[in-house]
Amino acid sequence: MMRFEFFNPTRIIFGAGSVEQLGDAVRHYGKKALLVIGGGSVKRSGAFDRAVSSLEKAGVSVVEFSGIEPNPRLSTVKRAVSEVLKSGCDVVVGLGGGSVMDASKVIAAGVYYEGDLTEMFVRAERKQRLPDRALPVVTVPTLAATGSEMNNGSVITIDEGGERLKTFVMAEVLYPRVAVVDPELTVTVPPDFTAYGISDILAHVTETYFCNVEEFPIQDRFAEGIILTLLEWGPIAVRDGQNVDARAHVQWASIVALNGWIQAGIRLLAPVHMIEHTLSALYDVPHGAGLAVLNPAWMRFALRSAPGRFAKFAERIFGVTGGSLEDRAVEGVKRFEDFLKTIGCPTRLSELGIGDPDDATLQQIAEDTLKVRRDREGRLPGYPALTKEDIIEILRLAM
Amino acid sequence: MMRFEFFNPTRIIFGAGSVEQLGDAVRHYGKKALLVIGGGSVKRSGAFDRAVSSLEKAGVSVVEFSGIEPNPRLSTVKRAVSEVLKSGCDVVVGLGGGSVMDASKVIAAGVYYEGDLTEMFVRAERKQRLPDRALPVVTVPTLAATGSEMNNGSVITIDEGGERLKTFVMAEVLYPRVAVVDPELTVTVPPDFTAYGISDILAHVTETYFCNVEEFPIQDRFAEGIILTLLEWGPIAVRDGQNVDARAHVQWASIVALNGWIQAGIRLLAPVHMIEHTLSALYDVPHGAGLAVLNPAWMRFALRSAPGRFAKFAERIFGVTGGSLEDRAVEGVKRFEDFLKTIGCPTRLSELGIGDPDDATLQQIAEDTLKVRRDREGRLPGYPALTKEDIIEILRLAM
Repeated sequence: MMRFEFFNPTRIIFGAGSVEQLGDAVRHYGKKALLVIGGGSVKRSGAFDRAVSSLEKAGVSVVEFSGIEPNPRLSTVKRAVSEVLKSGCDVVVGLGGGSVMDASKVIAAGVYYEGDLTEMFVRAERKQRLPDRALPVVTVPTLAATGSEMNNGSVITIDEGGERLKTFVMAEVLYPRVAVVDPELTVTVPPDFTAYGISDILAHVTETYFCNVEEFPIQDRFAEGIILTLLEWGPIAVRDGQNVDARAHVQWASIVALNGWIQAGIRLLAPVHMIEHTLSALYDVPHGAGLAVLNPAWMRFALRSAPGRFAKFAERIFGVTGGSLEDRAVEGVKRFEDFLKTIGCPTRLSELGIGDPDDATLQQIAEDTLKVRRDREGRLPGYPALTKEDIIEILRLAM
Repeated sequence: MMRFEFFNPTRIIFGAGSVEQLGDAVRHYGKKALLVIGGGSVKRSGAFDRAVSSLEKAGVSVVEFSGIEPNPRLSTVKRAVSEVLKSGCDVVVGLGGGSVMDASKVIAAGVYYEGDLTEMFVRAERKQRLPDRALPVVTVPTLAATGSEMNNGSVITIDEGGERLKTFVMAEVLYPRVAVVDPELTVTVPPDFTAYGISDILAHVTETYFCNVEEFPIQDRFAEGIILTLLEWGPIAVRDGQNVDARAHVQWASIVALNGWIQAGIRLLAPVHMIEHTLSALYDVPHGAGLAVLNPAWMRFALRSAPGRFAKFAERIFGVTGGSLEDRAVEGVKRFEDFLKTIGCPTRLSELGIGDPDDATLQQIAEDTLKVRRDREGRLPGYPALTKEDIIEILRLAM
């Protein structure tokens, strides 16, 4: 019988035009905001000006911090922490995609973190030291993908000491106080990145679904509900980016896919994300594109040990019937991969523009992944747990 | 396009045996707990002793307040508020079903409420004055039904000034800080009340589902997921009360049915609950039993104006296909009513042991309901909005 604790205190303000309410939301938490952004697309789209205008109208002054990378780096986060300490900001606003929001959370916690910031992150070889205090964070997503706007996680690339290790932290103090979610801010996202976002959302759901090994039935139904909605509305958002209804449904999917609602009672292990993190740390490929390649490959590997669960997935999501359990399991994965292709995602490593990795690279990806997380037997946790050789086999299945 | 705000800060500690963690949960919020209970079943089941022992072990002293009625009355709540003021309790623990938890919330807010406590509640003829402060509340449900353990609502019967009006309040300060949810505490609930609880949960979900008129697709899928789970596990919980897995699935269903997750983006109007509140204020019938009678009757009435939505319900829940849209809509309601019958719920007024109401009583039920809530045209809000005559027709459809 499942046992769990659930807690998510983030307030959501959702709807077209809600960015106008940003200032009102932020002024309860601070008077001087560090406004964290990425490479400048929010300036081109007008989102930045609207956010600043709303903040200033509410009496909140703004210090801009730009330049968060697509796979955000700890060195950049550290520069932002210095900026907060120098300028005296008392609240952090993250306006952007998952990278910007993830970085904002660590900036907010970094202000109070004593000692080396690298110790905040999961790493197999040593004990993690969680942050216990953070400035208030308000998130404003401009992409439907990571769900970072309403969760307590952050994925960061450690780029110091000659290495490049993409790892993560989850801590209660990292929950944003408010997420201002305006689907209109996502209408300028191009079709390819819209599709990568959908791939990311789907991976959050499938990684949860295939970890529901104790059979917690409502959680399965919720997960299936998100996938079915994405199959219906995802292609519309890709094809017709201006369709705000489709954008809203995909955005809500991204939030509920990783805000803990479908994870309650399930030990989320996320092996596909772990392998993808290594891949995108190495090649800087978009996270959702990497997942579209690795997720079906992992499924082809994992269905051998849990054909029943994959057959259920095939039946409930794609209405697959007939044949043996194994036949249905295989067919479900095939249809899942087909869906990713139809929305324009790559599903093979060669389509990522990085060529097929050679043997040494395969070894490195597997080893770097296990540097972040491994169980006592040295395997990557998951169902099934993965040895180094298993990870390499999954990568080969993605070729 | 939907717009909404969502916020639910209640922490859930879920699992068999979790009542042992009650003291640890409460001591963060206070040192002296008012332990609110109902008529004594928690003493017979041993839950009371386990709760007290856990509280005392954590250094929390306990003041008992017993005697909350099944349809809790304001006069009783007021006595409890006096008890808190006299004894100096700084936290309120509600151990029981929905009545006890609802009463606990209003007790906690009543301590700080200035002026007449009746003004806290919804009433058509005057403006409601919401509470803005409350003592911390911790809930420990012993019945899977109302979902009160993780929401900000409370249903109270005003029993003063010669009237008996069952009404409600929803306010942000009423969210419990923690819900300690131990499905083992529900194994002693007899089959009839287990079934009434399931009827209540189903009504929360169907009232939400039939208010999703702007077509917010994930919310439909989530709602359907809860119903499908109850159809599968509800009968097992009724038949085999000792099955802790079944109890856990029904308990989790009760929580997610009314903690805002499926209501996000939907204006919940709950006309069936409104009519049932009047019925149970008048006759003191169990809330879930009253709902089992009124919900299918309301559905038979409402499907005339929204056959498409009811046909979708029939298809997705019961796999009904073929025939006209109207045929499928009618068939879905019939199957829903049949399910309630199979778990032992009454589905007609005459089965409630109150006889069929006469014309004067029908008039009174309709009028009392509209005293709590009515729109500018004097109708009970819902899809469709209901005139006094409509409410009487629904009651007749329940005969």
